[in-house]
Amino acid sequence: MEQIEAERFTAALAATAQRVQRLLDDILCDASAPGEIVRPQRVLQAMRHGALAGGKRLRPFLTIETAALFGRRDEGPLRAGAALELVHCYSLVHDDLPAMDDDDLRRGQPTVHKAFDEATAILAGDGLLTLAFDVIADASVDADAEIRLALSQTLARAAGLGGMVGGQALDLAAEAAAVPLAAEDIERLQAMKTGALLAWAVDAGAILGRADPAERAALRRYGRALGACFQIADDILDAESDAATLGKRAGKDAGRNKATLVAALGLDAAKARRDALAADAGRALDALAGRDATTLRETARFVARRLS
Amino acid sequence: MEQIEAERFTAALAATAQRVQRLLDDILCDASAPGEIVRPQRVLQAMRHGALAGGKRLRPFLTIETAALFGRRDEGPLRAGAALELVHCYSLVHDDLPAMDDDDLRRGQPTVHKAFDEATAILAGDGLLTLAFDVIADASVDADAEIRLALSQTLARAAGLGGMVGGQALDLAAEAAAVPLAAEDIERLQAMKTGALLAWAVDAGAILGRADPAERAALRRYGRALGACFQIADDILDAESDAATLGKRAGKDAGRNKATLVAALGLDAAKARRDALAADAGRALDALAGRDATTLRETARFVARRLS
Repeated sequence: MEQIEAERFTAALAATAQRVQRLLDDILCDASAPGEIVRPQRVLQAMRHGALAGGKRLRPFLTIETAALFGRRDEGPLRAGAALELVHCYSLVHDDLPAMDDDDLRRGQPTVHKAFDEATAILAGDGLLTLAFDVIADASVDADAEIRLALSQTLARAAGLGGMVGGQALDLAAEAAAVPLAAEDIERLQAMKTGALLAWAVDAGAILGRADPAERAALRRYGRALGACFQIADDILDAESDAATLGKRAGKDAGRNKATLVAALGLDAAKARRDALAADAGRALDALAGRDATTLRETARFVARRLS
Repeated sequence: MEQIEAERFTAALAATAQRVQRLLDDILCDASAPGEIVRPQRVLQAMRHGALAGGKRLRPFLTIETAALFGRRDEGPLRAGAALELVHCYSLVHDDLPAMDDDDLRRGQPTVHKAFDEATAILAGDGLLTLAFDVIADASVDADAEIRLALSQTLARAAGLGGMVGGQALDLAAEAAAVPLAAEDIERLQAMKTGALLAWAVDAGAILGRADPAERAALRRYGRALGACFQIADDILDAESDAATLGKRAGKDAGRNKATLVAALGLDAAKARRDALAADAGRALDALAGRDATTLRETARFVARRLS
């Protein structure tokens, strides 16, 4: 039974990833949108390299599946999820830069500044981030302008200074610091760096689905727990895996004094924390009486056990 | 008479710059907005360095004065202009990076990557860009959500791949190219790199003022001519001025094979083109029958004759 659920989940995730891929391919086409002059080739190709190289597309999947809880099965959640994926991909392009994490490899491919050059990678990241706010503003996301605005503003806050950008800054500071961070500081850093966007993925689905305040709060708790679980699982993966499985440099966290919960707690305690967070994510869903949250439950299990 | 108009204009521009400065100072405060976790100090200070170092604030001024044509004198145009200024400032922070224009000095101050470090400058730029879309979505910009969305989406397009980001990419390509660009290619590059945001400044005022289609078209023509005029004036300034007047490295365009109209046309023809564009901007305003466009006319004269 558990095996069947896991297989169904994997197939659903892959099917959504294909839909996201097709939409991003379309959004990043040659043709200019109204209000654009032309789309210069080299930076467009760099943006495509950064956004179309694959990936599980977990964030759009969360938006789509959360909206589906409330009966939404139109294109709107997919489009909101694609906007989010553009933000996620921009952050990877900039994070890989020599001045940041200095990575040559991402999903088994050269990173954007390796495949192109550093200036083009900076601009490609800027372009992906900017494009996200074009995509999210479009009427195809939701007929209600107030809903699109709420999505746009909450996305900006999750991605910005008080969210992802701030988390990346804290991460750099931790790397340079003489004293390792305490576990609770690492958890806050991670809640910003990766948690904010993952939590937004769920919240966007709740906004699109017109969740009532109690449901939205339950889903926020789910999203926060899931985001934290995701990041510990990532740290555990980095500590245990190798580059061939991971498609990127492995063991790099320990090699550069990265603030991780594996370093702060030890591997066994980190795994226990990961499992506790997955369980907490599942419990948060119990508040959604009358909604079929099977897929979101399975997502929490998937995130905790993921191998790449 | 002309002298009096010019003095009145300079005073009005300075007064608006102060309002913009105060608002940006407030937006970039320590306190997190709802949906933000915390605002980490170092990257916040870098964002403040990039956004509060002064400048004429010409873009917000254009938004405010264009909206004022239609009787709008509330805070909305100021807030939309502040969002635009955040986008402009982010572009300067990233443009100054070693992999881009590699500048140490901006408005007489060390650039952000010099005052902080390169990674922090990348993140600060990302944070300023992201924050712009938070600010523009706020109800204080306009009570009508459709208007705010139109602003957000057109801003994204002016700033993105088919606008400013694309123009920066074309500029880098021109620098690396063996053959100098033709004048018309330079004009298109500049229409994207600097023109798109300046034109958006005017268009945002028209959107906020509920300009009718004929008025909006006239203002678009004005904004495009003004943007082109601004960039030629900038190129002429770079060719003729020195670092003390400019607050940044002068003569740098010629030193690095930058695509400029001074190089393509020669100094005298570039000045004639600048004056023709200023005149065209003025003529575009003739279509606004019954609106007092004195300030926008003076802005075109100011842009053509600016000394820094």
